[in-house]
Amino acid sequence: MSYFADVENIKYEGKESTNPLAFKFYNPDEVIGGKTMKEWLRFSVAYWHTFTMDGTDPFGAATMDRPFNNKAQALDAAKARAEAAFEFFQKLGVPFYAFHDVDIAPEGDTLSESNKNIDEIVAILKESQKASGIDLLWNTANMFTHPRFMHGAATSSNADVYAYSAAKVKKGLEVAKELGAQNYVFWGGREGYESLLNTNMALELDNLARFYHMAVDYAKEIGYEGQFLIEPKPKEPTKHQYDYDTATAFAFLQKYDLADHFKVNIEANHATLAGHTFEHELHYARVNNILGSVDANQGDVLLGWDTDEFPTDVYATTLAMIEIIKNGGLGKGGLNFDAKVRRTSFEPIDLFYAHIVGMDSFALGLKTAHRLIEDKVLDNFTQERYKSFTAGIGLDIVNGKTDFHKLEAHALKTSIKNQSSHHELIRGVLNQYLLTNQ
Amino acid sequence: MSYFADVENIKYEGKESTNPLAFKFYNPDEVIGGKTMKEWLRFSVAYWHTFTMDGTDPFGAATMDRPFNNKAQALDAAKARAEAAFEFFQKLGVPFYAFHDVDIAPEGDTLSESNKNIDEIVAILKESQKASGIDLLWNTANMFTHPRFMHGAATSSNADVYAYSAAKVKKGLEVAKELGAQNYVFWGGREGYESLLNTNMALELDNLARFYHMAVDYAKEIGYEGQFLIEPKPKEPTKHQYDYDTATAFAFLQKYDLADHFKVNIEANHATLAGHTFEHELHYARVNNILGSVDANQGDVLLGWDTDEFPTDVYATTLAMIEIIKNGGLGKGGLNFDAKVRRTSFEPIDLFYAHIVGMDSFALGLKTAHRLIEDKVLDNFTQERYKSFTAGIGLDIVNGKTDFHKLEAHALKTSIKNQSSHHELIRGVLNQYLLTNQ
Amino acid sequence: MSYFADVENIKYEGKESTNPLAFKFYNPDEVIGGKTMKEWLRFSVAYWHTFTMDGTDPFGAATMDRPFNNKAQALDAAKARAEAAFEFFQKLGVPFYAFHDVDIAPEGDTLSESNKNIDEIVAILKESQKASGIDLLWNTANMFTHPRFMHGAATSSNADVYAYSAAKVKKGLEVAKELGAQNYVFWGGREGYESLLNTNMALELDNLARFYHMAVDYAKEIGYEGQFLIEPKPKEPTKHQYDYDTATAFAFLQKYDLADHFKVNIEANHATLAGHTFEHELHYARVNNILGSVDANQGDVLLGWDTDEFPTDVYATTLAMIEIIKNGGLGKGGLNFDAKVRRTSFEPIDLFYAHIVGMDSFALGLKTAHRLIEDKVLDNFTQERYKSFTAGIGLDIVNGKTDFHKLEAHALKTSIKNQSSHHELIRGVLNQYLLTNQ
Amino acid sequence: MSYFADVENIKYEGKESTNPLAFKFYNPDEVIGGKTMKEWLRFSVAYWHTFTMDGTDPFGAATMDRPFNNKAQALDAAKARAEAAFEFFQKLGVPFYAFHDVDIAPEGDTLSESNKNIDEIVAILKESQKASGIDLLWNTANMFTHPRFMHGAATSSNADVYAYSAAKVKKGLEVAKELGAQNYVFWGGREGYESLLNTNMALELDNLARFYHMAVDYAKEIGYEGQFLIEPKPKEPTKHQYDYDTATAFAFLQKYDLADHFKVNIEANHATLAGHTFEHELHYARVNNILGSVDANQGDVLLGWDTDEFPTDVYATTLAMIEIIKNGGLGKGGLNFDAKVRRTSFEPIDLFYAHIVGMDSFALGLKTAHRLIEDKVLDNFTQERYKSFTAGIGLDIVNGKTDFHKLEAHALKTSIKNQSSHHELIRGVLNQYLLTNQ
Repeated sequence: MSYFADVENIKYEGKESTNPLAFKFYNPDEVIGGKTMKEWLRFSVAYWHTFTMDGTDPFGAATMDRPFNNKAQALDAAKARAEAAFEFFQKLGVPFYAFHDVDIAPEGDTLSESNKNIDEIVAILKESQKASGIDLLWNTANMFTHPRFMHGAATSSNADVYAYSAAKVKKGLEVAKELGAQNYVFWGGREGYESLLNTNMALELDNLARFYHMAVDYAKEIGYEGQFLIEPKPKEPTKHQYDYDTATAFAFLQKYDLADHFKVNIEANHATLAGHTFEHELHYARVNNILGSVDANQGDVLLGWDTDEFPTDVYATTLAMIEIIKNGGLGKGGLNFDAKVRRTSFEPIDLFYAHIVGMDSFALGLKTAHRLIEDKVLDNFTQERYKSFTAGIGLDIVNGKTDFHKLEAHALKTSIKNQSSHHELIRGVLNQYLLTNQ
Repeated sequence: MSYFADVENIKYEGKESTNPLAFKFYNPDEVIGGKTMKEWLRFSVAYWHTFTMDGTDPFGAATMDRPFNNKAQALDAAKARAEAAFEFFQKLGVPFYAFHDVDIAPEGDTLSESNKNIDEIVAILKESQKASGIDLLWNTANMFTHPRFMHGAATSSNADVYAYSAAKVKKGLEVAKELGAQNYVFWGGREGYESLLNTNMALELDNLARFYHMAVDYAKEIGYEGQFLIEPKPKEPTKHQYDYDTATAFAFLQKYDLADHFKVNIEANHATLAGHTFEHELHYARVNNILGSVDANQGDVLLGWDTDEFPTDVYATTLAMIEIIKNGGLGKGGLNFDAKVRRTSFEPIDLFYAHIVGMDSFALGLKTAHRLIEDKVLDNFTQERYKSFTAGIGLDIVNGKTDFHKLEAHALKTSIKNQSSHHELIRGVLNQYLLTNQ
Repeated sequence: MSYFADVENIKYEGKESTNPLAFKFYNPDEVIGGKTMKEWLRFSVAYWHTFTMDGTDPFGAATMDRPFNNKAQALDAAKARAEAAFEFFQKLGVPFYAFHDVDIAPEGDTLSESNKNIDEIVAILKESQKASGIDLLWNTANMFTHPRFMHGAATSSNADVYAYSAAKVKKGLEVAKELGAQNYVFWGGREGYESLLNTNMALELDNLARFYHMAVDYAKEIGYEGQFLIEPKPKEPTKHQYDYDTATAFAFLQKYDLADHFKVNIEANHATLAGHTFEHELHYARVNNILGSVDANQGDVLLGWDTDEFPTDVYATTLAMIEIIKNGGLGKGGLNFDAKVRRTSFEPIDLFYAHIVGMDSFALGLKTAHRLIEDKVLDNFTQERYKSFTAGIGLDIVNGKTDFHKLEAHALKTSIKNQSSHHELIRGVLNQYLLTNQ
Repeated sequence: MSYFADVENIKYEGKESTNPLAFKFYNPDEVIGGKTMKEWLRFSVAYWHTFTMDGTDPFGAATMDRPFNNKAQALDAAKARAEAAFEFFQKLGVPFYAFHDVDIAPEGDTLSESNKNIDEIVAILKESQKASGIDLLWNTANMFTHPRFMHGAATSSNADVYAYSAAKVKKGLEVAKELGAQNYVFWGGREGYESLLNTNMALELDNLARFYHMAVDYAKEIGYEGQFLIEPKPKEPTKHQYDYDTATAFAFLQKYDLADHFKVNIEANHATLAGHTFEHELHYARVNNILGSVDANQGDVLLGWDTDEFPTDVYATTLAMIEIIKNGGLGKGGLNFDAKVRRTSFEPIDLFYAHIVGMDSFALGLKTAHRLIEDKVLDNFTQERYKSFTAGIGLDIVNGKTDFHKLEAHALKTSIKNQSSHHELIRGVLNQYLLTNQ
């Protein structure tokens, strides 16, 4: 059966097309700098926002028209959802998808029953992957929705919850292996605190590190070779989330000797909630060698919560793609649309519109970024700025061949002349590149 | 003599030009919807940021290379500055400029001396305007820098300061008349409070209204027919500024019977500091018939102060121009670049780069906005959404021909069906229009 | 039967009491400045947060232990809830409560059925009010949760929804009359927009004003004499809510000739979301004569959403009570705890702890505010600051007996001397008062 | 001569005192938990805000009445300032002060001349320290005000500036040794970027680390044994400052092998600008063993810039002192008032009022914190929450004696029961403690 009967496979029709169900910029097989767009971008659909989410918000009830979820039995809905999902992936033309355990299968009354439900759906997904050639970018365990996680999961104040969380991740790693997930993600939705007044942060962070080490050990034991990812977010639902931003996660990974095992999954909206631009987080991760994958969405910078909008801002996608290209691509990672249609865009067709604009925005970003890099537009400005570090005292500094005595001696005899950053000119050039793509 | 000897008049060279001193999108005489670009956009250079500002910030000293300000006598610098300014206006090709009193002439030891200095420079400016055909968009009195205004000006707790402020505005109106200023602006930099604990807000607001009424009366007395403008800003330098945003200014104008005499001068960066988008403020002003003029800049939404950057975001300029076109243009108002080059863009040439990117960004915005309006792109979505108000009970509502009884009767017999907002589709169409300008 | 069997009536035991189920500062019959604490504070319990809310958040499922809601039939739960509510009100010792229609009675399949459910519960509430002496501070209609309100209610793009909303408010006013509600509140949760791109703001605002006028007319028709209140909030769930803050609501009320019929219901957390302090909103409302009632809660200023915490910050309660005392009290309004226990405070007993700390915080605020006013602590600072407006040119200004000529003449001959605001000294005195209550 | 002739030594007079020039809570020799208040609090006056700062803000000129700065020669002013400073320290009764090089001595035309000026003043300061018993908490080099630092100092794109910065810090360390500074601080005001588009972050961070290593080496060479401190701040004046917050600094210190040599100097206002509470930053630093010293001020959370207000919020001071007590005090660090009187509090006497309220607020915080800790008020809540980690599976987790197999086995057989956090009760108890100090 078909859940999206009125939609054909989405095709590239070029930027003048008036067909709302066509790509204007995303041409999957177009080669850019030696790789196809599809290879660079590695798009993934988020199972939760696209198939499970119902339009509820803190002040409103479900609005979404999702026929596949209207089944008397939760497991039947889960099966219909899986069917709808693969129809959607194929019509959209994405190579990857991602999920939390509870997105694909209903929780049972017991852990055993939950695992049994997961097994049943995983078998279906495996078959669908094989049939379609679509792969799992990553999976994860939802350890924030159920009330048992009210005080956290791997940082819960309750040891029984910690154990339960371990069991969930154990299962998640088994699923990851079974489905060939390229990554396994940890987003610590409740790993943080609502009040410092009754929180033992030291114990919680130590416990979290122990948990991660056990996960690494178990993956090794079962031969799962995917990449581990931590997804930073500063807050919401907690007052403070421990993986506040990429730098905080990096501090944690280093302290607990985990930096060889984990990279980060950077979400645009989480970046802005932490006070950073998307490109800042990508850049910081890149230069510290922990850029793993990307949750491709956007926030509303005038709103203080995670709006998880589909990415449409081509400035952001361009600056993101500069980082990704300079990283040599995302490796096992990808661009996962952790984005939801607005609550009022409740028709199934809106799921296509939304992903199309997201994919087009990143495709345009890729093209612009590639031209900027090829033409050395920004690099020329930058190299000029730092040229004093390529010779003389500057080169000595970079090579570690100086000290405060030598530097003082240099300073005493040198007259300083700074150069303009030409900041506004650079913005103009960026605009020009963005607005003249073919 | 020339202060910008290495710059020729800036010309339009089209979007592929690699000349950094050329317009890529702004073609002043190009006709769009019956008016030239120049007429729609009415660009104005801000005297303070461009000629007076020295690059100081709260943590740093002056950086700007501005030869015209390096004179032993302040009045000589003022004259050189005026000369440089008109050279700049002409080479850039803008029809307007704007200033505070203290930007053009140094304050003297007494009010009389200050006024004398103003007179001397105003005579020069008048001559330059006549010679160049460049007009004054607006002038204003700086009533926030001098320590006498520490407690406010027209809302000062000190009656002597209130009187002094009146004298400054009196002089400002005389200058406005003398130079043919199309508008006179009030930005209440210190009209607000730093602490409610010792503030008599009721008295201060009453005094402010009295002040504005006196200004209206004096303008009438001297035959000055420019437009009065209030410029909202929520805070900075004060903790709370009384003209917080357009709605707050509108509440004030109505309460004190001033709405017939004042419109608002909306600044993009002030909008975002108040938690609004630029287009929101423009839209709200437009539908309430108080859209007067625009301070064209942009802020950094991740920073909490007024960064006054040159506008480069073509989303913002497009959405702004939609409002301005729908307003039938800005009337006596214009697009004044209340924007400053970054502190590190300290060379005179950066002033050109910055204005060029600003003008190009608005030109591109105008073109995109015009096409969106011509093609009824957004309007079609909107009309479809509200069509239930064009007949039946909806039309009765709009015509005021209904009441709670009739509406209840309708509700009791009617089954409600909402339509999707197709939010993501609209964003995609907007992107497509933006990225396909010729 | 009892839902709070382990709790006795809460009593005042003084500030040294170690009983967690006792008031430390709230002594209801203690007389402060001629009125009892109970009369000044007019505390009200919010039905929704206290009895209906289940602990759900955007990332988590229900956590609350609320036995009265565990019934097979929704109407049975509603009855049990009402019973629990009045037991709670009495044990806590509050004189008022407040509700939305859907808090007290389940929605039916049709409007008629919903109204029938309401009638059934209202009869019970009326009886309980009579028996207990507890009154209804205000009621309102929930016009944001049901999916029919996705595009708004009185500002919906769908005329049928507008009619439905009218029917809900009509019923709400009838309930208000039946239960003797002292106020009727409008919080426009979805009266705003998620995107300007497809919004007809002018039509929506006109329609909203028409709606309010019809409400005023209907209240008059049925003889309901309660106070109408608008509750400002800047955003959430919408991107922009039309009643952004008190000033915006005041602009609207004036424009549409509604200022004689409406006051505002100010919520502390909504104030901070709009960039204002709680006391600012109260003060602004007071000096503009539209201070109606208060939603007593607090937000977390480092979080960007409505956390609706119980008020515990005694600085905020003190500054709020200064405004309320200076307003001569709240008239028909009161201090309604629009506040919820944290999701992890899920036991019934936490409802008592939370209200006790809220009531104690306002009681302490009242005592401190009263002492500050009695001792003229802040007023002396303020009068000293503005004394120049009590004679000479200052008095002329206040009396409207001056103009720009006279003010200039004064300025030309006057040397200005400002006085220090002694801001830090004032903060010290405030602290001293706060920390030395008996 | 005397600059504060009308002020006597400030004395403790108890909380009922009406003398504005007396301490109400700070009783320096009162013993709390085995140490005197003076020892716990280690107050320090910030030379810059108190003696050098003139009241300038981004929109306003100098307002401060500081007779000692009114000298024809900068060096004379520097000497008078030093004299005034020690008079102030002694009358206030603080044991420490702190400065940047440019606060104490004017910059010369050359580096040599600047150093000569520093030497001249340092000799005076040394003498004054000896005579008064007042010590230097820390010194630092100002590497952000002069235009040469426009692109940064130790992260400048200009190698000559890097060398100059090294020379400044070299001198700073020599001064630190000479004056016995207990700490040497790095606040990287311009160590960050204004735009990523032309920034080589990797090079800049590497250079910064090299710089710090050279500083460590030089200190060792000259035998300076003070503590090195990094002061995090997220932004302002830069768009992004590299030491964004404590966690970011910790990531940096670990990556570059500097964690044994540096701790952090946490400023309250910097914490809130980074989206954290003050106590969060202190707590995070404490549990990671890098809590060094504190810049004791407060921000305005509704404003987006560094307001550097004197600390008056006794909630904040109490929660801060809890962390400091649990840290066993601040070691070589102290509570430095990096705070400035408001621009309108321009009289010399306001400097006393401001410091008195700051000292009283921390004294009250110390007393409250100590009682809370002594009575195990918060600790009892916390221990109860985590008790499941003291035995059984929880103890195995903490001891690293478990793995995913064992945890899953435990989870499969265990029914989870969470306990309430009683969040609101805890807030009530905190209030009670705060409001019942004797």
